Amino acid sequence: MSQRIAVIPGDGIGNEVIPESIRALEAAARRFDLQLDFRHFDFASCDYYLNHGRMLPEDWKEQLGGFDALLFGAVGMPEKVPDHISLWGSLLQFRRHFDQYINLRPCKLMPGIRSPLAGREPGDIDFYVVRENTEGEYSSVGGKMFEGTEREVVIQDTVMTRIGIDRVLKYAFELASRRPRRKLTSATKSNGISITMPYWDERVQEMSEHYPNIDVDKFHIDILTANFVLHPDWFDVVVASNLFGDILSDLGPACTGTIGVAPSANINPEHRFPSLFEPVHGSAPDIYGRNIANPIGQIWCGAMMLEHLGHEKAGQAMLDGIEAVLAAGSDQAPLTPDLGGQGTTSELGEAIADAIRDG
Amino acid sequence: MSQRIAVIPGDGIGNEVIPESIRALEAAARRFDLQLDFRHFDFASCDYYLNHGRMLPEDWKEQLGGFDALLFGAVGMPEKVPDHISLWGSLLQFRRHFDQYINLRPCKLMPGIRSPLAGREPGDIDFYVVRENTEGEYSSVGGKMFEGTEREVVIQDTVMTRIGIDRVLKYAFELASRRPRRKLTSATKSNGISITMPYWDERVQEMSEHYPNIDVDKFHIDILTANFVLHPDWFDVVVASNLFGDILSDLGPACTGTIGVAPSANINPEHRFPSLFEPVHGSAPDIYGRNIANPIGQIWCGAMMLEHLGHEKAGQAMLDGIEAVLAAGSDQAPLTPDLGGQGTTSELGEAIADAIRDG
Ligand SMILES: CC(C)[C@H](C(=O)O)[C@@H](O)C(=O)O
Ligand SMILES: CC(C)[C@H](C(=O)O)[C@@H](O)C(=O)O
Repeated sequence: MSQRIAVIPGDGIGNEVIPESIRALEAAARRFDLQLDFRHFDFASCDYYLNHGRMLPEDWKEQLGGFDALLFGAVGMPEKVPDHISLWGSLLQFRRHFDQYINLRPCKLMPGIRSPLAGREPGDIDFYVVRENTEGEYSSVGGKMFEGTEREVVIQDTVMTRIGIDRVLKYAFELASRRPRRKLTSATKSNGISITMPYWDERVQEMSEHYPNIDVDKFHIDILTANFVLHPDWFDVVVASNLFGDILSDLGPACTGTIGVAPSANINPEHRFPSLFEPVHGSAPDIYGRNIANPIGQIWCGAMMLEHLGHEKAGQAMLDGIEAVLAAGSDQAPLTPDLGGQGTTSELGEAIADAIRDG
Repeated sequence: MSQRIAVIPGDGIGNEVIPESIRALEAAARRFDLQLDFRHFDFASCDYYLNHGRMLPEDWKEQLGGFDALLFGAVGMPEKVPDHISLWGSLLQFRRHFDQYINLRPCKLMPGIRSPLAGREPGDIDFYVVRENTEGEYSSVGGKMFEGTEREVVIQDTVMTRIGIDRVLKYAFELASRRPRRKLTSATKSNGISITMPYWDERVQEMSEHYPNIDVDKFHIDILTANFVLHPDWFDVVVASNLFGDILSDLGPACTGTIGVAPSANINPEHRFPSLFEPVHGSAPDIYGRNIANPIGQIWCGAMMLEHLGHEKAGQAMLDGIEAVLAAGSDQAPLTPDLGGQGTTSELGEAIADAIRDG
């Protein structure tokens, strides 16, 4: 029984790292006897936009809706198309219409990667950011008045629903229940954002009553970002609104030095729609075309995808392959320049695929 | 000609650090022959709220409006009064009604303070966060519908005006013009927050045309927080909306290890209303009453206040006093426990006042 994966490289280095992710996935598939069926799409890219005047074809939901998962590269070419057009026209549409209401990002200090924080060792930092991914501060409600005059004013609504908040909280509490420390941190700002965030706090309070075994705390987003830097070891599962989660899930990987290699999963937990897996890094137009982009984020996405599709062992084997190559260091392994090595994108991808194959 | 300072300790350790700030200010006043006239107020505290059912007396604007500056401690006792009541009822009222539309926070690696970032030395990090302080995400517009049902929804408006944005940008560009590096970074999120933030970008673009000598760049808030950790040396003046500035001005001091000692200024640049000076740290109920709170943030506030009142040399002398005592280290100076010493709040305050007096 084969699983169907839609592959959407998007822009820039998305096109260079996607083939390495597929190579690694194929190695895992052979070893664990999985059937993965890849199909490529060229939309959700700025080139597509320049040719068609839109980021996606009209029937994108039908074209993609039947797949088991979407493996996504990166989108954005701000020199050619403004980001709010390219992103709202693609990635944010997928998240919303495929109801990928969880954005999950691991923040993990990996072997062989230098953390910018003093004195932290692999094992010290290992947590997840669970981000609400469909509502909140990313709304499309609002507008501009008195345009072009001194009175000009823009208004944008933050919209949070009980359904939307409760389901992301439930996912985060369940995730915390499965982890040894059973700890959940809520990101809030109820001291300043006086309508939506006190409501968020109320829902956290109510949900926590159903999970008496979880140790729950909360921090305002300002001091929480500070604590990511000062006490990253405090965290296990951090749950946050769309905007706060966006911030925390870049800051977390920055603290572990993994922003160039971290993955993210946009998940519809009920499998009603395909989930989408994309690296944290962007399309990096500045290095595109030189075969030096680091493919690890995209490969790690493959690992998260296999886990989501029910293949936990195969996903773990992919992560082990990544860690083994990283631990070997740039003397032994063809690490890319961002990791201090001289390897190319394809050489590093090949080394990881070999490590996955050999187990 | 004396200048009148309203002193508002607020809650918790505000009451312990305020006297040390006054001691230091009096030392500076004697040395530079300034006339400062202090008057104390007990409102804007949770105790006042518990006695009066409100954080401020009805005529607070008249009582405080005539002062030259407000020296503020900290507000908040979440065990007794929810933060969104105590803060919205006091600090946020001052900011808005006294039109303190600039929140200015230095992020500076100080001698003798351990940065959590690996390999950074004093001098490496030295920038300002300029935060819009009256509008944006901190609005009071919005509400809740379908209360108590599954359909429950909360909505809160972000409101940005051309006037509000332009004046904070102007302040930030002027500040950048006076600094050697002449560099300004704008915090945005126009790729995701699709109405207000593209407008913010537009205003930055327009304002930058009036300052051709300033080197301007922008980052989305997610990667900007990452860059505070990865490349804090990139920044000189960072300008941001109310919420983004709130986050960056906790994260910045965290990166320099100074969150317990950093000051902040809430400024009405035209001096139409009194400006307010408060430390970044909160009321810290957990350590209140033990005379161990670090008074440096509050003293540094005094330095910023003197500068704002036109006494640049005296303000600089206060900062020099702080730096001299910090540089002496805990063997020579009565540093408080948070700095690795065994001094008390009053001992450290006295040491700094002495250093200011002796120059
Ligand atoms: C206490 C809170 C309302 C306040 C804010 O968010 O503005 C604080 O974090 C600050 O930065 O002064
Ligand atoms: C590109 C942008 C719209 C997106 C977001 O803000 O969600 C990105 O930062 C992310 O985190 O996936």
